[in-house]
Amino acid sequence: MVNCPQPMQTLIQCLSGLPGIGEKTAIRLALFIMNQPEVDAMQLARSIIDVREKVSLCRKCFNFSDSDLCSICSNTKRDPGVLCVVESPGDLMAIEKTSHYRGRYHVLQGVIAPLEGIGPDQLKIRELVQRIDIDQIKEVILATNPTVNGNATALYISQQLLVSGVKITRIAQGVPSGGDIEYIDEVTLRNALDGRREMK
Amino acid sequence: MVNCPQPMQTLIQCLSGLPGIGEKTAIRLALFIMNQPEVDAMQLARSIIDVREKVSLCRKCFNFSDSDLCSICSNTKRDPGVLCVVESPGDLMAIEKTSHYRGRYHVLQGVIAPLEGIGPDQLKIRELVQRIDIDQIKEVILATNPTVNGNATALYISQQLLVSGVKITRIAQGVPSGGDIEYIDEVTLRNALDGRREMK
Repeated sequence: MVNCPQPMQTLIQCLSGLPGIGEKTAIRLALFIMNQPEVDAMQLARSIIDVREKVSLCRKCFNFSDSDLCSICSNTKRDPGVLCVVESPGDLMAIEKTSHYRGRYHVLQGVIAPLEGIGPDQLKIRELVQRIDIDQIKEVILATNPTVNGNATALYISQQLLVSGVKITRIAQGVPSGGDIEYIDEVTLRNALDGRREMK
Repeated sequence: MVNCPQPMQTLIQCLSGLPGIGEKTAIRLALFIMNQPEVDAMQLARSIIDVREKVSLCRKCFNFSDSDLCSICSNTKRDPGVLCVVESPGDLMAIEKTSHYRGRYHVLQGVIAPLEGIGPDQLKIRELVQRIDIDQIKEVILATNPTVNGNATALYISQQLLVSGVKITRIAQGVPSGGDIEYIDEVTLRNALDGRREMK
């Protein structure tokens, strides 16, 4: 451990626990926090406390929210008949950045992962099934990750929703924009061929 | 800006202000802080507050310290007759990591930088000159960075200490360990030639 006062060692240890931050970066950040204006350091600390005290999950879609309903669920301009099902609020934020989707969301808060002991009951799947009737949903877009677990979760949900008669779609899997077909893996290429669309 | 509750936006903005952390990393960290156990998030916030409230500068050497004298100045096993002069506590921590130096330090808290309006009076140079007599220093090792400003600061300090008769040394400038001479810049190579030592 580096030679520095105990409070700095504690801070370095806490920072090292963040993703992508090793000991060297943690030391650099700790030195920065020591040298920046005190008001900035205190605002950073305050914002961490605030985010945990004021932000919880939206009652309806389980996105992060600082009120009972999140800003998307309470936005009357968003199409209430279309639900995009995602694994996490981070996925939701990525889709929102496209400014391309005008419906609403349902955040599963995870993915079915048998190896980690996570089954359907630990996710917000029951709540999704209930929403279909209550909110008179017309289409459910399954936007779980294109991974083994994500695909399995999408399949499971589609089976659960079958009886409701709602339209169920899955986001397209294919070659990413700007990709180089020569270097793209076989599974992705197979999906791109299977999912080909007629050019009009 | 990403679509998320105001407290999260504030946190993302605060995190983006840290060195080496852009918006994408800040979002990733904020999502991690939202998802980690609350006790961990609170400990991170607490450690930031603690570091600013409990850590100040050592009265003698101006290193970071959580008491009047830092752990090095109050360590009787360290040679009190040798001072290593560094620009910042980060430089001190780097030298301490070598476990090679057994003397004490003097942290200038900056470097003479005319373009940024930083002169000798804003640094702890006067305090260094005073320490030479009071602490009966025998050798001063100038370990400011091997940059234009760092070299100028070392030169300035050596002139200030001339009358005291203390032995003044400058850390060696040359090729770094593991370096490739073919790709090392001319100034460094010139320094390496100038500073050559007889092999015994």
